[in-house]
Amino acid sequence: MGHTKLEVEKSLSSFLTEKVETSIDPLVTQVASLIKEFTLNGGKRIRPILMVSGYSLFMEPDSRIYNASICTEISQTYFLIQDDIMDQSMLRRGKPAFHLQVLEKLYRNGNDLKHHAESIAIIASDLADSYCHQALLKSGFDPILLTQADMELSNIFEATGQGQLIDINSFFDDNFTVRDLMRVHLWKTARYTIEGPLRMGAILSGTKEKLQMLSSYGYSLGLAFQLHDDLLGLFGDETVLGKSVKSDINEGKKTLLILKAMENGTSDEREFLSSAIRSGNVSDDEFQRVKKIVERTGSLDYSIDLSKKLSENSKKYIARSPGRQDIKDFLTWLSDYIIKRSS
Amino acid sequence: MGHTKLEVEKSLSSFLTEKVETSIDPLVTQVASLIKEFTLNGGKRIRPILMVSGYSLFMEPDSRIYNASICTEISQTYFLIQDDIMDQSMLRRGKPAFHLQVLEKLYRNGNDLKHHAESIAIIASDLADSYCHQALLKSGFDPILLTQADMELSNIFEATGQGQLIDINSFFDDNFTVRDLMRVHLWKTARYTIEGPLRMGAILSGTKEKLQMLSSYGYSLGLAFQLHDDLLGLFGDETVLGKSVKSDINEGKKTLLILKAMENGTSDEREFLSSAIRSGNVSDDEFQRVKKIVERTGSLDYSIDLSKKLSENSKKYIARSPGRQDIKDFLTWLSDYIIKRSS
Repeated sequence: MGHTKLEVEKSLSSFLTEKVETSIDPLVTQVASLIKEFTLNGGKRIRPILMVSGYSLFMEPDSRIYNASICTEISQTYFLIQDDIMDQSMLRRGKPAFHLQVLEKLYRNGNDLKHHAESIAIIASDLADSYCHQALLKSGFDPILLTQADMELSNIFEATGQGQLIDINSFFDDNFTVRDLMRVHLWKTARYTIEGPLRMGAILSGTKEKLQMLSSYGYSLGLAFQLHDDLLGLFGDETVLGKSVKSDINEGKKTLLILKAMENGTSDEREFLSSAIRSGNVSDDEFQRVKKIVERTGSLDYSIDLSKKLSENSKKYIARSPGRQDIKDFLTWLSDYIIKRSS
Repeated sequence: MGHTKLEVEKSLSSFLTEKVETSIDPLVTQVASLIKEFTLNGGKRIRPILMVSGYSLFMEPDSRIYNASICTEISQTYFLIQDDIMDQSMLRRGKPAFHLQVLEKLYRNGNDLKHHAESIAIIASDLADSYCHQALLKSGFDPILLTQADMELSNIFEATGQGQLIDINSFFDDNFTVRDLMRVHLWKTARYTIEGPLRMGAILSGTKEKLQMLSSYGYSLGLAFQLHDDLLGLFGDETVLGKSVKSDINEGKKTLLILKAMENGTSDEREFLSSAIRSGNVSDDEFQRVKKIVERTGSLDYSIDLSKKLSENSKKYIARSPGRQDIKDFLTWLSDYIIKRSS
């Protein structure tokens, strides 16, 4: 998939460069440049690669699908800008969060301009969202396929928003259950990151095959992806991740790791975990204790086992999906990779 | 246009009701209900009415165009939610701003939950944005026309964001000129409110006629619309407007009224205006003095004259545009109405 990633990078760079260069207003140029740099800086391009894969299952890829696929990468810019404002995160991909870059580059870190920089960042996220639809709509596919794919994109964005709602609210929801959490993961991660891009690619190929098995693959692997992300968020390597390893805890995230540990822990442990994720700023010692409790209660093993099982299931689904074998082989490889990666 | 407005209301209500009723998550249902109430509460429906008009110039309207046209009304919800967070406004259409409704209804006005309620509101604006594209894409038109119209919608949203960037930044821009202001008005108001909806309607009609005169009408009338809005913002009736008449000044808006008064005023007056729009909270006396300076310097007359001239120009453009005469008559009537309305 090295070739695909390269083609995606080329499309991304050329689309965003055009945005910067065709702007007639200096402020718009500045913001478009920030969007460009933010988008081009890192990112595994997993969504566009999956979109190209969904297409390649049924059709030989050409420049149109690379150009269309970047809508699922620019959407990351759209959502990550907002996420970091909501969570008041400082770092993203090893650099200052977008709104902090605005504060620094447009307003020289003026202290009283924080709210203002966040407003500019929200507008930048809106621009990125427009870019997503534009990139897709000008990719050159048949309008019948484009309207279907753009409806899919809009539905994906709606699902992502719904997942994000429940996620953000979970901090204040004392009755937040594993069922709620699964809804977040299915909508905000599985559909948005895996299932949606795959389906969009398949839609653009114009295939008449049923996409049910492909969707099941996407949902299973998407859940596994999120569980593994949560593992990295607690037990991963900060320098590889590009963000503080404490940030999940400090943001008060009720991950499956935390929920299961609370379910299985002693009342002391439950109380400690509950206060740790509410503190907003755990010490090193507290952070170590969180990890120990997650291990001791079997919650760590539970999450690892579940993500393995989901990854295995996804392989069964892709085996039963129609489409070219070499692409199915890649997707099978991905099922393993996703629960082994370190970032 | 009473009939059109009624059909638009029906489409809006049925689309948003379906969003509320088909949601499987209680929190999503709550937020979708807030979006529905916010959208259905007031609003002159000028954008969808213009979109239907752009269509009716060339084709007899049917349910498809009413269903499509609501994308330009739900977009108001999308942008107004964000505007009120950016400006920290309290009131919108005579009710609490959206994020304050979230704070009240979801979090019982918990003081420390303000940022959180704003996050939920931002996500709600994202949902409204998805709804816009969905409403358009499922309206039943030919896919060739739909892709063109959705590209137009995305371009309109991009222009709106660009205008909003310059607008928000103007507060801190000491070199903000009338030229910058015109860019804001052209992108954020003229294109978004008048020209864009008219063009989208015309596009969906499938007409092969040139749309240049229609665009010129939209841009001219859009500028007149904004100038009149600014007049109402300073000299209008609070109870009719549904928002504080001081809010433009308190938000630090550099309107043409203010810029021209500063240009033509004494250095004392200039200094006073400059500090008034920076204060964030003018007293009644200060507010009266702002109005007096705007009158004395001739800035009020300048704005009134300019909006009249633009309105007259727009009538000339629509006279030269292709399309049905009765619709052109309505648009001509609108040119007069827009600079006479009291809200």
